[in-house]
Amino acid sequence: MAGTTDTVRVAIVGASGYTGAELCRLLVGHPRVTITSVSARRAAGQRLADVFPHLRGTAALDLEVEAFDADRVAAVAGVAFAALPHGESAVVVAALRARGVRVLDLSADFRLRDPALWATWYGGGDHGAHPAASLLDEAVYGLPERHRDALRGAGLVAVPGCYPTATVLAIAPLIERGLVRSAGLIVDAKSGASGVGRTPGLASHFPEMAEGLRPYKVGGTHRHTPEIEQELGRAAGADVTVLFTPHLVPMTRGILACVYAEPTDPARPADAYRQALAEAYAGEPFVDVLPAGAVPDTAHVRGSNRVHVTAVFDPRSRRVLALSAIDNLVKGASGQAVQCLNVMLGLPEATGLAAAPMFP
Amino acid sequence: MAGTTDTVRVAIVGASGYTGAELCRLLVGHPRVTITSVSARRAAGQRLADVFPHLRGTAALDLEVEAFDADRVAAVAGVAFAALPHGESAVVVAALRARGVRVLDLSADFRLRDPALWATWYGGGDHGAHPAASLLDEAVYGLPERHRDALRGAGLVAVPGCYPTATVLAIAPLIERGLVRSAGLIVDAKSGASGVGRTPGLASHFPEMAEGLRPYKVGGTHRHTPEIEQELGRAAGADVTVLFTPHLVPMTRGILACVYAEPTDPARPADAYRQALAEAYAGEPFVDVLPAGAVPDTAHVRGSNRVHVTAVFDPRSRRVLALSAIDNLVKGASGQAVQCLNVMLGLPEATGLAAAPMFP
Amino acid sequence: MAGTTDTVRVAIVGASGYTGAELCRLLVGHPRVTITSVSARRAAGQRLADVFPHLRGTAALDLEVEAFDADRVAAVAGVAFAALPHGESAVVVAALRARGVRVLDLSADFRLRDPALWATWYGGGDHGAHPAASLLDEAVYGLPERHRDALRGAGLVAVPGCYPTATVLAIAPLIERGLVRSAGLIVDAKSGASGVGRTPGLASHFPEMAEGLRPYKVGGTHRHTPEIEQELGRAAGADVTVLFTPHLVPMTRGILACVYAEPTDPARPADAYRQALAEAYAGEPFVDVLPAGAVPDTAHVRGSNRVHVTAVFDPRSRRVLALSAIDNLVKGASGQAVQCLNVMLGLPEATGLAAAPMFP
Amino acid sequence: MAGTTDTVRVAIVGASGYTGAELCRLLVGHPRVTITSVSARRAAGQRLADVFPHLRGTAALDLEVEAFDADRVAAVAGVAFAALPHGESAVVVAALRARGVRVLDLSADFRLRDPALWATWYGGGDHGAHPAASLLDEAVYGLPERHRDALRGAGLVAVPGCYPTATVLAIAPLIERGLVRSAGLIVDAKSGASGVGRTPGLASHFPEMAEGLRPYKVGGTHRHTPEIEQELGRAAGADVTVLFTPHLVPMTRGILACVYAEPTDPARPADAYRQALAEAYAGEPFVDVLPAGAVPDTAHVRGSNRVHVTAVFDPRSRRVLALSAIDNLVKGASGQAVQCLNVMLGLPEATGLAAAPMFP
Repeated sequence: MAGTTDTVRVAIVGASGYTGAELCRLLVGHPRVTITSVSARRAAGQRLADVFPHLRGTAALDLEVEAFDADRVAAVAGVAFAALPHGESAVVVAALRARGVRVLDLSADFRLRDPALWATWYGGGDHGAHPAASLLDEAVYGLPERHRDALRGAGLVAVPGCYPTATVLAIAPLIERGLVRSAGLIVDAKSGASGVGRTPGLASHFPEMAEGLRPYKVGGTHRHTPEIEQELGRAAGADVTVLFTPHLVPMTRGILACVYAEPTDPARPADAYRQALAEAYAGEPFVDVLPAGAVPDTAHVRGSNRVHVTAVFDPRSRRVLALSAIDNLVKGASGQAVQCLNVMLGLPEATGLAAAPMFP
Repeated sequence: MAGTTDTVRVAIVGASGYTGAELCRLLVGHPRVTITSVSARRAAGQRLADVFPHLRGTAALDLEVEAFDADRVAAVAGVAFAALPHGESAVVVAALRARGVRVLDLSADFRLRDPALWATWYGGGDHGAHPAASLLDEAVYGLPERHRDALRGAGLVAVPGCYPTATVLAIAPLIERGLVRSAGLIVDAKSGASGVGRTPGLASHFPEMAEGLRPYKVGGTHRHTPEIEQELGRAAGADVTVLFTPHLVPMTRGILACVYAEPTDPARPADAYRQALAEAYAGEPFVDVLPAGAVPDTAHVRGSNRVHVTAVFDPRSRRVLALSAIDNLVKGASGQAVQCLNVMLGLPEATGLAAAPMFP
Repeated sequence: MAGTTDTVRVAIVGASGYTGAELCRLLVGHPRVTITSVSARRAAGQRLADVFPHLRGTAALDLEVEAFDADRVAAVAGVAFAALPHGESAVVVAALRARGVRVLDLSADFRLRDPALWATWYGGGDHGAHPAASLLDEAVYGLPERHRDALRGAGLVAVPGCYPTATVLAIAPLIERGLVRSAGLIVDAKSGASGVGRTPGLASHFPEMAEGLRPYKVGGTHRHTPEIEQELGRAAGADVTVLFTPHLVPMTRGILACVYAEPTDPARPADAYRQALAEAYAGEPFVDVLPAGAVPDTAHVRGSNRVHVTAVFDPRSRRVLALSAIDNLVKGASGQAVQCLNVMLGLPEATGLAAAPMFP
Repeated sequence: MAGTTDTVRVAIVGASGYTGAELCRLLVGHPRVTITSVSARRAAGQRLADVFPHLRGTAALDLEVEAFDADRVAAVAGVAFAALPHGESAVVVAALRARGVRVLDLSADFRLRDPALWATWYGGGDHGAHPAASLLDEAVYGLPERHRDALRGAGLVAVPGCYPTATVLAIAPLIERGLVRSAGLIVDAKSGASGVGRTPGLASHFPEMAEGLRPYKVGGTHRHTPEIEQELGRAAGADVTVLFTPHLVPMTRGILACVYAEPTDPARPADAYRQALAEAYAGEPFVDVLPAGAVPDTAHVRGSNRVHVTAVFDPRSRRVLALSAIDNLVKGASGQAVQCLNVMLGLPEATGLAAAPMFP
C-alpha cells in the first residue's frame, strides 16, 4: 500500500487496559490508519470515552466497545492488535489468523519460539500446552532494530515484552560484536507502575507504592527471563543464561535497564562500548546513543517510542555497564507495535510515532 | 496563507524553560510551522538537545540555542513566541513588533488592559511603569473560546495565565448568561509543580514537595487575580472582585479550578448550570463538558490542549460549583499559544494539537 | 489510674486497615498502654507482621490477629479501639459496651447525635436505622480541643472524621467569637490517598492517581458534611449549613482544609482572625497557630498529631480564609483517638504522642 | 552513666540539613539526651522552628540556631553530632576533639582508614590532603552490627554512608562465612531524593524527578565505593573491588541495595544464604531477616532505624542476590548515629529508636 494514501483499517482487541488505551492514543494520530473496532470483554457496550475519559473529544475514537467477535473483526479490519492476557491471546490470534487478519500480538504467547519454554514459564494455572503452537513458526519477534527484514510482510508479529526490549537493545550489539562475554550477564531493571496493568491491587495501591521501592520475582523467576535469553542467544549464536531482577518504582511510566557484563578484552578503550552502540544504531529512527558522560533517564523518553542507550566501562572492577531507558507503554508495548505495523506495511517507520517525549 | 501548504517560520524566544520546551514539542508536530530559531539567554551556544535531552533525535529541533537578537529573529521568522519573565518580555516584544514580527507573548505583560494594574501587580522590584504600554491597545487576550474574532489577524497576542484560563472557562458562561451572581466569587485552584518553572527552589525540591500540599499567595495576593477579574468583568459587564487561592500540589502537570458562586435563582433545576456550559461550548474543538455525575481530573487532560469542565448545584447550601481541569503547560500556556496561532493564521484550530492526552 | 505507672490493657478491633496499623504504631510507643489483642476479620490467624511488614521486629506487636470475640476482648482489655466500617462498628461497640469495655470508635457511627441524620447519610445500602441508637447519648465527640471536659471519664468516644477535624479546628473559634458569619461557609478540602483506606480500587491505583487531582462527592454529598455542620452549629449556637468539597491529591498522608467565611465586621484589623485562633489555642498541646505570613503545609505535620492553623483576611474581597493542615491518619484518626484515651485516663495529653513530625 | 537517669547534653553542628533535622526529631524523643545547642552557618540567628516548621511545638527544640563555636559547644555539651559537608567536617571535629568533646561525625571524613584514599576520592576541588589525618586512628566506623565492641567508649565515631550501610549489612556476613566469593561483586543500589540533601538543584526539582528514574556516578565513580570496599575487605580478610551503581528514584526516603555475588559452592541449598543472614543477625535489635519468599521494601522501614534484609539463590544463573532496605536518613545516617551514641554510652541500643516505621 506504500505510495498511496489509503488508510489501513485496524481493530484493537483488548482495549480496556493501558496498552489498549495507548494503542488508541497513538493510532488516532497515525495518518494511514483508521480504527474500525475496539473490543474488550468487561467494557463491552460502553462508549470508549466512558472507559477512558482522556479519550473524550477525539472524534475518531467515538466508538462503542464491542464484545470480541472474530468474524466481525475480519469483516471490518485487515490488521488487528491483540492486547490480551497470555493464553487468552493465543486463542484470539488463532481465530483472526484463520480469517486472514494480520495480527500484532502484545501478549507473550508468540514471543518464545520453543513451545516447551512457553509451557514451563506460562503454562501453569489454567494453562498447559501452548494453545496455538502451530502458529509459532510464522510469528516474527517484533523488535525492528533486530528483526526488521523478517517483519516486512509478516502475518503475525509477537510484540516484545517491555523488559526484553530495554535489555536487548542495551546489550545485544555488544554481545554480537564480541565486546562482552555472553556468560554471566546480570540484568537489574526497574519499571514504573503502569507495567502492572490497570487491575488494582495492593502492590500498586498509591499509599503502599508512593514511597515504596521493591524488587519482585527475584531469583530469576520473572517470565521475561527466557525471552531475554532467547534474543541474547541469537546475538551470541549460543545459549545464554541471565540473572534478571525486576523492580517496581514509584512512578507511572518508564523502564530503566542496567546490564552488567564482562568485557572480552579489559584493555579496550573505555569508550569502545558506547561507540559500538553508536555504530550499531546509526540510522535507527528511534534509538539515541547518548553522548559520553550522559546517562539515560526515563523522564526523557516518556510518552514516546524513543530509546536512550549508552555503555560505560569501569576500569577498577573491569566490568561493562550497558544502560537503556524506554517508556514501557510505548517502545515497551504499543509504540513498538505501531512501529512493527509500519514495517509490515512498508511505511516510513516513524509514521504516527514522531511526537517528541512529554517532558516534564 | 490558508489554502496553501506553505509553512510559517516561527521563532521561540526563551526556549530554556518549560513553556519553551513545550512549544518545541508541540510545534515540531505542527504541519504548517517551521521552527527557524530558538533563543535563550543562559543556554545560548548549546544544542537544544543538551538543554532538553527529551528533544534529542528530533531532526527539526537539531538547533543551536541563540542569544536573542531582534534583527535576526525578524530575518528568519514571521511569527515569534515569547516565553520570558514579565517585564523582560515587554522589551523583547516591543523590539519584535517594531520589526513587523507577529508575537504570541506567554508572559503577563500584555494581559491586563490597564497599565496601572500592571504597575500595581507586576511593577515592583526592578520594574516600575509598564515598559511598552503603547502596545497594550493592539494586544488581544489569547483565549480563543472568548475572543476568537479579535484573534484573527492579530499582531500581538497576550497568551493567558494558567489559572485564569481554567477559571474563566469554568465560570464565565454562567456569569454571562446571568445564572450566577458575579459578586462574591471564590476561586480555589490547585496546580502541579511545573507551574513553578524550571528554576529549582526549596518549594519544588522533591523531598519537600512529594508529600506536601500547601496554599500560597493567600489572601488574594496572587498576580493572576486582576487577570481573572478583568475577564470575568467582561463577562459580567461590570467590575468583578474575586477571592483567589492557589495551591501547589505534588504532581507535575495540571490545574484544577473550583469556582464557588451564588446562583441568581436557587430554584433553577440542578443540572441547568452544566447544561449552560454544554450550550456555551457546543462546537468548541477543545472543551469537553462532562456528562452529569462526572468530575474533571487533571490526569485526563495531561499533555493535551483539552479542557474538562462541569458545574453542579448544591441544593442544601444553594451554591454552584463550577469545575475545570487543564494541563497548565498546554491549554494553560504553550498549547493555547499554538491554538491562538492557528486562529491568527486562519488554520483549523486543532492543527498540531489533535493528539489525545497521555494517560496514564 | 493517674499517679501510678500501671498500664492499661487495650484491644484494637479492625487492625488490618490503615487506622488500625497506625493505632499499633502509636500505642506501641505509649508508656502506659499494653496491647493485648488485635482482631480483624480477613486477616484472622495471621501474624500481625505478615499483614503489616513494617511492624516486624516490634516485640510488643508480635501478636496473632484474632477473629473478633467480644467476650475475649472484655477478658483481656479495659479499653478497645474500634477501627471498622460504619454500621458494622456500631454492633461491635454495643457488644463491648455491654461488657463494660470503654470504647474509642473511629467509625462514623456515634459522631452524629441525631440518629435520623445517621439514617439519611449512612443508612442506605445494607443499613437502615442506626444499629445502636441507644448508645448515642453516652457518646462523646472526641475532639479534645472542643470537648475536653466531656471526654474525661467517658465510656464511649466517637473519634471525629478527618475532614471535620481539620475544618472545625480551623473555623470554629472564629464562629464562636463572632468574628465570622456562620452562614455561607465554604469548605474546600484536600486529602491524601490513605484516606481512601487499604482496599485497592481504580481511584487509588498508582498510575491513575500519581498525576491525577480530582474532587469527589461534589455538590455537598460527602458524608462528613453533617458532622461538620453539627460541630460548627455547636460553635454558632444555631443551625449551620456548609458547602463542603473534598479532593483527592496524589500524596499519601495529609489533609489541608480551606474554609471561606464572611467576616462580621470587614473593618476589623486583618490579623485579628489569626490572633483569635492564637488566643483560642493557647496552651493546647497539639495546635500551632502559625506566625503571620506562614501557611500550613501537610508536609510539616506528617506522622504527628499536630495541627497547623492560620487565618487571613483579604481586604479586596472582604473574606476570611481559615486554613489548617493535619495528618489524616494521626490527628485525623488514630492519633486523635490516643489523645482522647489520654484525656479519658487523666494522663498528660501528649503521652505517646510527643514525637515530632517526620520531615521530609 | 548507665544505671542513672541523668541525661547527656548533646550539640548538633550542621542542623539545617536533612540529617540535622532528623537528629533533632530522634533525639528529642531520646529519654537520656538533652539537646543544648544547634548550630548552622546559614541559619544562624533564626529559631529552629523557622528553619524547619515541622519542629514547631516541640518545647525541647525551641532553640535559636547558633553560629558554630567550638568553645561554646564544649561548654554546654559532652557529645556532639557533626552533620557537615566533608572537608569542612574534619576541621570542626578536630576542634571539638581538642576540647574533649566526643563526636559522632556524619560526614565521610573519618570513614576511610587510609588518608590517601580520602585524598583520591574526596580531595579534589578545594581540598587536598586530609585536614585531620591524625584523628583517623581513633575513629571507629560506626556500624554497630559490625564494630560494636570498638564503639563502646569511643571518642570519635565515623557514621557510615547510607549506601555502605545497606550494602555491607546485606552481603558482609555471606563473605565472612565463605558462602560467596568476594571477587566480582556488583552492587546496584537505589536511593530516594532526600539523599541529595536540602540544597535545591535540577536533579531534585520535582517536575524533573517525579517521573524520572536514572543512575548517576556510573562506572564505579561514586565516593561510597572505597568505603564499601574497605568494609567488605575487612569481612573478606583481603582486598575487595566492587562495581557500585547508584540510582535516584522518585521517592523521598529509602535505599534498596541489590548485591550480586557468586556462591563459593553452587550446590549449596538455595535457602542457605538467607539462613546465614538470620544466624548472623540473631539478637540484633534493628535487623530483620525476612521470611523466605518475602523481599525488602523501602516503604516498610521508613522513618525507622530498621533494616530488612534477605538473600536468594538463582539456580539457573548460579548467582546469589543479597537485598536490603533501609531509611537513608535514619539507619543510613541520623538513626545510626543515635544507635552508636547508645553503644558509646552503654545504653540499651534501641533507646530513643524504638518507634515503628511510618506506614503508609
